[in-house]
Amino acid sequence: MVYIGIDLGGTNIAVGVVSEAGSILSEVSVKTLAQRPYQEIVKDMASCVRKALNKAGLTEDDVKAIGIGVPGIATESTGTVLFCPNLNWTNVPVRDELRKYFDKPVFIGNDADVAALAESCAGVSAGSRCSVMITLGTGVGGGIVINGRPWTGAWGRGGEIGHMTLVPDGVPCTCGNNGCVERYCSATALIRMGKQECFAFPDCGILAKAGGDPDRISAKSVIDAAKEGDASALRVFNSFVYYLVLTINNITNVLDPDIVVLGGGVSRAGDFLLDAVRSGLKRYQMYKTLPGPRVELAQLGNEAGIIGAAMLGK
Amino acid sequence: MVYIGIDLGGTNIAVGVVSEAGSILSEVSVKTLAQRPYQEIVKDMASCVRKALNKAGLTEDDVKAIGIGVPGIATESTGTVLFCPNLNWTNVPVRDELRKYFDKPVFIGNDADVAALAESCAGVSAGSRCSVMITLGTGVGGGIVINGRPWTGAWGRGGEIGHMTLVPDGVPCTCGNNGCVERYCSATALIRMGKQECFAFPDCGILAKAGGDPDRISAKSVIDAAKEGDASALRVFNSFVYYLVLTINNITNVLDPDIVVLGGGVSRAGDFLLDAVRSGLKRYQMYKTLPGPRVELAQLGNEAGIIGAAMLGK
Repeated sequence: MVYIGIDLGGTNIAVGVVSEAGSILSEVSVKTLAQRPYQEIVKDMASCVRKALNKAGLTEDDVKAIGIGVPGIATESTGTVLFCPNLNWTNVPVRDELRKYFDKPVFIGNDADVAALAESCAGVSAGSRCSVMITLGTGVGGGIVINGRPWTGAWGRGGEIGHMTLVPDGVPCTCGNNGCVERYCSATALIRMGKQECFAFPDCGILAKAGGDPDRISAKSVIDAAKEGDASALRVFNSFVYYLVLTINNITNVLDPDIVVLGGGVSRAGDFLLDAVRSGLKRYQMYKTLPGPRVELAQLGNEAGIIGAAMLGK
Repeated sequence: MVYIGIDLGGTNIAVGVVSEAGSILSEVSVKTLAQRPYQEIVKDMASCVRKALNKAGLTEDDVKAIGIGVPGIATESTGTVLFCPNLNWTNVPVRDELRKYFDKPVFIGNDADVAALAESCAGVSAGSRCSVMITLGTGVGGGIVINGRPWTGAWGRGGEIGHMTLVPDGVPCTCGNNGCVERYCSATALIRMGKQECFAFPDCGILAKAGGDPDRISAKSVIDAAKEGDASALRVFNSFVYYLVLTINNITNVLDPDIVVLGGGVSRAGDFLLDAVRSGLKRYQMYKTLPGPRVELAQLGNEAGIIGAAMLGK
């Protein structure tokens, strides 16, 4: 039997046929065109499922379940998407709508939770009892997997790591609070701190990496300059790592996971980031003679969305 | 069948016979005399178990399991207490030692985890899927219960809520880090902040409640003065509540529990504390249209140690 994984994004719908072991056997995608009525979007999902099955030489009879990852909050019990800002969805009955096309079990999860599940089924955290994935992108996403199932908590707010308060009364956040993790540990944060350095030190390596244009400073400009030892870039990078280490340590003091997986664009900094985070964690960890959580980079990249959605049905 | 709960503290060993439903049927206690070899302490535990059974008119045959709550970190799989600072224990094989006296399953847990378990079996959080108990005492303890079992994580560090970093580079903590929750949300924190107010405002109500002696300021002096509307005491109390609300919200953004239970000495402030915390949480909660965790006061008081230890074996 196979599983269907649907990665519903604001830009694309990606649908894959996934094996029991978590490998993608075939994949089809279309534009989301997010402003359409949800019924049309779900209709396109169904059509992609048929095409992907066809491409893999399989039929509906081979499908055990269908899973959907959405960039929002979903209620597992009802199969409803409660909020999905990118698609402008509120209380959309996605499961019921998709079951008009397929008589199969349909599961829905948040995209960050689904990515964490993918890594714990077929990626770097496979075999762990409790894993936490932190997605360091434009914002900071989080996904928790306990005993092989995503942990979303009582109302689906579980794993909202990006909106833990890290600095009371700190930088204002889009969520309405101040000092959220996302304001210190995202690509956006690297850019903000990088720009501040460039105003103070116009000769710094960050600005050089951005071709002299502050508006072109990216997370990569900062990290590349830091790798070359630029003092300004290292100040920014070390600050970013400090806040990320505090965040991981705070999660450890709640959940004590076996493994923390770093994903998202900033994780492309690779071992440079990983070494800094691992060494920082040792400084802050309680009970220093006990092991801390392993910290690793995500392995599955963009495929995590499809694989994790499929694994919701496993 | 009944369960034995042993509440091992730095001062007393309290042993109770506990029913299936989580009520204490009989109780016996002795001094811990913590500086003795652990073998003697465990021998006293065994003798208390026999006396408690006798008092309840029961025998060893009626006992299903024995549970021990310790003020430290224990490894469930081996039954070993890894660290227990109050007893000066390191790697003590408590389960093996107690099984020399009784051929029964023996379970060991941290005292804060055990208190949380008691509330979730026979107290205010009964029936919840995920509860978090926060003990506001000299320090801040935490216990997490998921699906009826204490969640201690990979190495027993789960629920160390008191040592989450709340204020980066904040007040130095006994653990070696800075700005831990415990430094802002404990009785100790109320006293520290209360004293600061008294130095600045010697006419304040806090000092009056302490009979004019700054060394006699307690958490109760601050809370009693705040209840009477004293401006200094309210500044301290509001600050305490602010930090506690951020902490509960941070835990919610990881676990999204059904219920948060407040215990420990400071929770005796009762509805005065509860109302302030509940109203503060609404301000910071993500997805404000969704319910937040219920926040309630612990119900079992000192009995939680025995009941929860007993329920480890259920």
